[in-house]
Amino acid sequence: MQNPLKKRIGILGGGQLGRMLMMESTRYNVHFNVLDKDDSCPCKPMADVFLQGGLDDDKKIFELAAISDLLTFEIEHVNTDALLALEEKGVEIIPSPKILQIVQDKGLQKQFYKKNNIPSSDFFLVETANEWLDAINKLGTFKFVAKTRKDGYDGKGVAILQAEEILNDISKIPFSQPCMLEAFVECEKELSVIVARNRMGNTVSYPSVEMEFDPDANLVTYLTCPAKITAEQELKAEEIAMNVVKAFNGVGIFAVEMFLTKEGQILVNEVAPRTHNSGHHTIEACYSSQFEQLTRILLDLPLGSTRLIKPAVMINLLGADGFSGSYRLKGLEEISAIEGVYVHLYGKSESKPMRKMGHITILGETIAEAHKKAELVNSLICFVKD
Amino acid sequence: MQNPLKKRIGILGGGQLGRMLMMESTRYNVHFNVLDKDDSCPCKPMADVFLQGGLDDDKKIFELAAISDLLTFEIEHVNTDALLALEEKGVEIIPSPKILQIVQDKGLQKQFYKKNNIPSSDFFLVETANEWLDAINKLGTFKFVAKTRKDGYDGKGVAILQAEEILNDISKIPFSQPCMLEAFVECEKELSVIVARNRMGNTVSYPSVEMEFDPDANLVTYLTCPAKITAEQELKAEEIAMNVVKAFNGVGIFAVEMFLTKEGQILVNEVAPRTHNSGHHTIEACYSSQFEQLTRILLDLPLGSTRLIKPAVMINLLGADGFSGSYRLKGLEEISAIEGVYVHLYGKSESKPMRKMGHITILGETIAEAHKKAELVNSLICFVKD
Repeated sequence: MQNPLKKRIGILGGGQLGRMLMMESTRYNVHFNVLDKDDSCPCKPMADVFLQGGLDDDKKIFELAAISDLLTFEIEHVNTDALLALEEKGVEIIPSPKILQIVQDKGLQKQFYKKNNIPSSDFFLVETANEWLDAINKLGTFKFVAKTRKDGYDGKGVAILQAEEILNDISKIPFSQPCMLEAFVECEKELSVIVARNRMGNTVSYPSVEMEFDPDANLVTYLTCPAKITAEQELKAEEIAMNVVKAFNGVGIFAVEMFLTKEGQILVNEVAPRTHNSGHHTIEACYSSQFEQLTRILLDLPLGSTRLIKPAVMINLLGADGFSGSYRLKGLEEISAIEGVYVHLYGKSESKPMRKMGHITILGETIAEAHKKAELVNSLICFVKD
Repeated sequence: MQNPLKKRIGILGGGQLGRMLMMESTRYNVHFNVLDKDDSCPCKPMADVFLQGGLDDDKKIFELAAISDLLTFEIEHVNTDALLALEEKGVEIIPSPKILQIVQDKGLQKQFYKKNNIPSSDFFLVETANEWLDAINKLGTFKFVAKTRKDGYDGKGVAILQAEEILNDISKIPFSQPCMLEAFVECEKELSVIVARNRMGNTVSYPSVEMEFDPDANLVTYLTCPAKITAEQELKAEEIAMNVVKAFNGVGIFAVEMFLTKEGQILVNEVAPRTHNSGHHTIEACYSSQFEQLTRILLDLPLGSTRLIKPAVMINLLGADGFSGSYRLKGLEEISAIEGVYVHLYGKSESKPMRKMGHITILGETIAEAHKKAELVNSLICFVKD
């Protein structure tokens, strides 16, 4: 076996997920090469070799592969064809771009769940206005969700719509590209389970995370771990999440986002074949973080323990409305005085409205205590112009 | 107040202590500039600006100061005069080089304790053979310890000697430079307390660490936290450690090494005005690690909680005897499967006998459990030629 301490890992994407992967892996002496179009991206200062180039650029991806022993990606919006060609040639890519290919298309993703008996909401693939109307009628629900099959991200390319409104006026169809329409799920909670699976097929899951979304931004605001669900629901959520990853024959880290319906059913919403916002708390709250876990998988080390050390709440730090540019984190002093509060900034030089600038993990002895601290933290901080 | 997220910190020394400071501070967006003579030092890959130069080189130190908002050091063997000159000119240096000046000279250090009523063993400063003989007679103990006043490090410049042997044959005096001779303390345990003190004078201590030394190497082998001492002894050890740092009017992180004598007395042995090997476990075992704590002090953020989350044992990873060069960590796979085992490698490209290559922190639910795991870990690992 190759000396794991000498593997050179190439990362497609230079954002915060890559940065935290490197932060959490420095202690393994891992060498990271990074490709990103932005010369001031969060990964740049920590990369062994930084290649500047788009993630759609075949040539640059091949260049990254040439100087790396294996590749991974920290974002789905990459040139999958280039990765498939490399995989064909024997380059190890974790997770496989074949999974990326399915996941990048929300239509293929839903079809995959259906084929593999993964519980998920009813859906139809549409493009023309007639297909929209037909699908809305077949769904038969008052509200439904429309998602563009490709290129959706952080709330972009997603709309919650009233069936009646579109049926009455097709000019209100919000997307012209191919879409996936699905029944709107009246959900009790939104859950996420991070799953780690290695080359041997060993699979572990992290305790479920409960998400509360900010209705204005469709970006997560409070993420609580463990989720406040029954032990039976917890078991079920982790089981479904692991089944999804096994169905993909996935190797790597996967975030499985699920709905717990008002009827107590668990339905898979989406899968991200990478480390995920809903797993950031694992850095402080679990024995092995999602990032260190990915490194273990990449280096072919045994999977680490996913056990929770302390209950945690995570909040995202988003760029404030009303200004772009150089910033200061107001409230940093105040919140730093609270025990178990971990501020993570992503090294972005400019704040922009709604931009993910960082996150804060808050540990508590109980979920309630962590939540109380998180609310206090949230009330104290914001980005201001510097 | 300057935006803490924009401070540029200059570090004298590019070793593992600087590396872990950077690792633990990446999440604060801190910019680090590093000076070290070795172009392949552990800090190099993570530094914003790396200056190659000796730590005795005035010019390079001034160059580092010119591109940094404040300075710190990760090793005592630096050009104190250059730092004193900079401090005189108003450059902020944490801790103050005035403390370094005292600590660098084990004679001055002992005099400082005496003057400030810090409990420490009896001592004499000597240089000539006559002074040696006089001091040995005055100490009146069977065994004594001789330390060169300057340049001692990791067991170098320290000797435990028999009074009788030197009195009978002065050619057995091991050092020709100025020395500090002190009574040999029959100690029950060796303890270390890490103290953090900020500009406001706020002072906190970490729980005591108990050290077991390898008699062959005089390098720490097992470090256990909390130390297995009484609550009263713990209180006393932390109090003495904080008093030492207050006496220095120290700002920064300090490691106070102490003896718990067979009679239950606590005596200060030595102080290091920097993060320390005996505080590495704080990365995983405490709410704020010694490294993050130093960053808080440097950035003028409130002190973090020093509370222990889980009992921990730390072992150093030393280069194996018998070879130098490229290495592999045998046993890495096996120990990675154990929950709560954190392998830290310092990014050194070559192993050398006794070189500090890394450390491993082991968390347990109890001290006993952590110890048992640590012994298993220790039996499984060693560096081998790659």
